[in-house]
Amino acid sequence: MGLDEGPNRAQKPHEALADWLADDMQAVNALIRDRMASEHAPRIPQVTAHLIEAGGKRLRPMLVAAAARLCGYAGPWHVHLAATVEFIHTATLLHDDVVDESQRRRGRPTANLLWDNKSSVLVGDYLFARAFQLMVEPGNLRVLSILSNAAATIAEGEVLQLTAAQDLRTTEEVYLQIVRGKTAALFSAATESGGVIAGAPEDQVRALFTYGDALGIAFQIADDLLDYGGSAAVIGKNTGDDFRERKLTLPVIKAVARAGDADRAFWQRVIARGDQQPGDLDHAMGLLTTSGAMADARADALAWSARARAALAVLPDHPLRGMLDGLADYVVERLV
Amino acid sequence: MGLDEGPNRAQKPHEALADWLADDMQAVNALIRDRMASEHAPRIPQVTAHLIEAGGKRLRPMLVAAAARLCGYAGPWHVHLAATVEFIHTATLLHDDVVDESQRRRGRPTANLLWDNKSSVLVGDYLFARAFQLMVEPGNLRVLSILSNAAATIAEGEVLQLTAAQDLRTTEEVYLQIVRGKTAALFSAATESGGVIAGAPEDQVRALFTYGDALGIAFQIADDLLDYGGSAAVIGKNTGDDFRERKLTLPVIKAVARAGDADRAFWQRVIARGDQQPGDLDHAMGLLTTSGAMADARADALAWSARARAALAVLPDHPLRGMLDGLADYVVERLV
Repeated sequence: MGLDEGPNRAQKPHEALADWLADDMQAVNALIRDRMASEHAPRIPQVTAHLIEAGGKRLRPMLVAAAARLCGYAGPWHVHLAATVEFIHTATLLHDDVVDESQRRRGRPTANLLWDNKSSVLVGDYLFARAFQLMVEPGNLRVLSILSNAAATIAEGEVLQLTAAQDLRTTEEVYLQIVRGKTAALFSAATESGGVIAGAPEDQVRALFTYGDALGIAFQIADDLLDYGGSAAVIGKNTGDDFRERKLTLPVIKAVARAGDADRAFWQRVIARGDQQPGDLDHAMGLLTTSGAMADARADALAWSARARAALAVLPDHPLRGMLDGLADYVVERLV
Repeated sequence: MGLDEGPNRAQKPHEALADWLADDMQAVNALIRDRMASEHAPRIPQVTAHLIEAGGKRLRPMLVAAAARLCGYAGPWHVHLAATVEFIHTATLLHDDVVDESQRRRGRPTANLLWDNKSSVLVGDYLFARAFQLMVEPGNLRVLSILSNAAATIAEGEVLQLTAAQDLRTTEEVYLQIVRGKTAALFSAATESGGVIAGAPEDQVRALFTYGDALGIAFQIADDLLDYGGSAAVIGKNTGDDFRERKLTLPVIKAVARAGDADRAFWQRVIARGDQQPGDLDHAMGLLTTSGAMADARADALAWSARARAALAVLPDHPLRGMLDGLADYVVERLV
């Protein structure tokens, strides 16, 4: 401590995790590089590398490794599970960008733009299959159940998001189901499977699940808020993407619920009918602020963050626990 | 026998399998209906039912059940594995139709045409995830390894097909890799996993793998031949689909290999450059016949069929063995 406190205070929690887990993450990255290779189809590592080496934070694999290490696991199978969740995540991103017709991801052109939709669909399928090969190798059936259930929840959430996209009747309950599918299911599967592979007691496994679930929901609400407030330079995607894709995200759901006739007609036109004119995004952002929808969604994100931090109480006293606590704070810190 | 010989001789082998395995297949269909449901996203069972209830022959799940029963298995887990391979197959079809921009499948409009590409991509992902949930339930790690390896081979073959599609340098060796990914990997995983779940001796498990592999290759070469010769009414897809998609299928690969300068220029234009004019399909079909490419590809299909039948020798003497023998004959019978 002492002299280190200065620099450490400035270090972000995911950077602290990356430092602490540096050896694990080096092994994870080596395994990812090994398993994304294809002897016959060079398109596969090209597309995968474009996305996987674009400077993502490796948050999901770090959650697996952090949970396993925090529960005293000495290895080696957490490395396979960490690579598994990164492959599932990457496959999901490839398919998301096709479905959303996105053009930028992590500040770079998307794979569907650089190659084509076909490559993104098929390379995504390849990474899903590789993920399942990887998760089979540790030979732990409970972990297989957790991760295959998460994959189904993710896919179901994506379909739900697609069909709810233009539906102004979408409730906060449905929103939460979508968010669990979109983000929280893989976060909670990462932390829970880390605890299971470590042989942690049941109450700790449950706490790890709750932490991942609440962290994922806080993270996603924050992401949705930033889509109406951040800049492309900061978050690596374009402000208003969700608006243009007519997604019913939490701020919009809250604003619609409290809208008068004129505002409701506006949301009906731009979201339900998809008739968007220049200036509509600015007008939407104005409504989201004046209605209090942004502030209330922000409060929800903070509450989920607090729930994630509270879950950590039953876990062993360990530097990694402090970093996970800091991470749950950090995902909403950018909102304050 | 006796009086039954007449009608039995007219019965097709997959119909004989369906009769013999009727109880198993009823259980498989019930499990499929149960697992394709989604509480929150009705789009999922809609899209799935459109494809899965369109009168497919359920060939792959029947191969699982036939292999398991032939090796004396009394159940119940072959039902889960059978539903697994049907889900993987259905997911693959959904994504294939997006990638190939197909408009008809099994004589009906494709899901991507009736709904949209997004639904096909995401519902396909859901079925992949459901397949992995199903295959985990029997708790057999060797079966998990076989099926997850098959999923990776399938996806790799699809990417290879995409990148080889317009490449006249594609060899018969690469073609075989593509076909293994496209068809034979799931056939051989179906028969092999049926044998493994039944606890069959190693030589029988190997024979079941070889049977499925060779059957799948014979089936796919026949399918490629019919694409240049069948009618939409007979095979439920449009003649010339592969030609329009500029796929290097076996007849084309053989024709290109023996083409003179003028014919090579033709293939270069229609396949490599994709500049296709009215009448080109007829001209291509003429070249495929006069070069002997069709006849030679037909001979290859017959040889793979014979290899599949020969593999059955080490398996128990059982009515199902005769039906599998008949099936290997039947897939190439339509070519003679």
